[in-house]
Amino acid sequence: MPRHAGRIAPQAGCALELARGEILRVIDPRGEQVADLFAFASDDRRSALSSGRSIDYAGSIRFTTGSVLYAGDSRPLLTIVEDSVGRHDFLLTPCSLEMFALLYEGHSGYHPSCLENLATSLAPYGVQPHEIGTTFNIFMNVAVGPDGAIAIGPPLSRPGDSIVLRAERNLLVGLTACSAEKSNNHSFKPIDYEIHAS
Amino acid sequence: MPRHAGRIAPQAGCALELARGEILRVIDPRGEQVADLFAFASDDRRSALSSGRSIDYAGSIRFTTGSVLYAGDSRPLLTIVEDSVGRHDFLLTPCSLEMFALLYEGHSGYHPSCLENLATSLAPYGVQPHEIGTTFNIFMNVAVGPDGAIAIGPPLSRPGDSIVLRAERNLLVGLTACSAEKSNNHSFKPIDYEIHAS
Repeated sequence: MPRHAGRIAPQAGCALELARGEILRVIDPRGEQVADLFAFASDDRRSALSSGRSIDYAGSIRFTTGSVLYAGDSRPLLTIVEDSVGRHDFLLTPCSLEMFALLYEGHSGYHPSCLENLATSLAPYGVQPHEIGTTFNIFMNVAVGPDGAIAIGPPLSRPGDSIVLRAERNLLVGLTACSAEKSNNHSFKPIDYEIHAS
Repeated sequence: MPRHAGRIAPQAGCALELARGEILRVIDPRGEQVADLFAFASDDRRSALSSGRSIDYAGSIRFTTGSVLYAGDSRPLLTIVEDSVGRHDFLLTPCSLEMFALLYEGHSGYHPSCLENLATSLAPYGVQPHEIGTTFNIFMNVAVGPDGAIAIGPPLSRPGDSIVLRAERNLLVGLTACSAEKSNNHSFKPIDYEIHAS
């Protein structure tokens, strides 16, 4: 039994507190949906998730079972301990209002975004938007071509697929059900999660 | 004539203030050397260089003439206006003491690093180390394989090669001559720079 479980509504987000050793399972209940994750050490907000450190230490832009997600200060925050999909992204920032204006032709005006949803969810903890860097984009399918070009495809996740991460420190985690049309094959869906005691 | 020019000693760094429209030329005087660059908007330190935003908007992990380097808040900080090399890295964090312990077999104890050199150079401006994220690693040659594996090769820069960036806002820039053996073909060399008025 998880000690806590929840469903994140389509185009929404939440904040989760994880104790060291606890297990976070992120589930795609309907398939082809993305969940952006950002994390801070609870006892030192300066110790925040770093894509660059994690890629450097992994020697890869691909993260799956066994991969460690590091903070900028080189301390491990999370380890992937199960992964039924095997394709996630750690190159791109969460979608933002500005991103929709710049990358989605014809879009203007308000659009929900992962950055806003992370910022809103983490604001009660004193997190400011600029502290939210490149997210670990669970189930996001980003390919890098031989010329360096990136291509965003539909997630490879099928209904019920999941990834499981172990907290290596006490963590504050932000998690979303992604708001970007390109990331989830143009269909907004929820994301489920479970927190299990260690 | 540049309004200011300088040489960064091997395994060292510096801070530069650029006015909007000014031009920064970074020169590899001896070839096969890397220069890590980080930047903040002078009038709002929360507006800092973002690899994830820049890759997202470029649609590529490759940056060369015409590419824009964005802040996390989606505002342009720098535009590349000339580039005689065409291969730079925007995936990896600056080398750090912890990186040498983790990735260089047999290394222990002190090692100069770009992170320390950036932190020391930017400290007089009130920048804290955790504010320094993934750097734009000028001349660094990082290849991504079909399986996502990254491989760091000798820089493609030859003696006298350079890259030229235009400041899109008033900027505080940190710049290094890299300290990592793998980045510069195991030979520590200086980096030259020139600042030209717009």
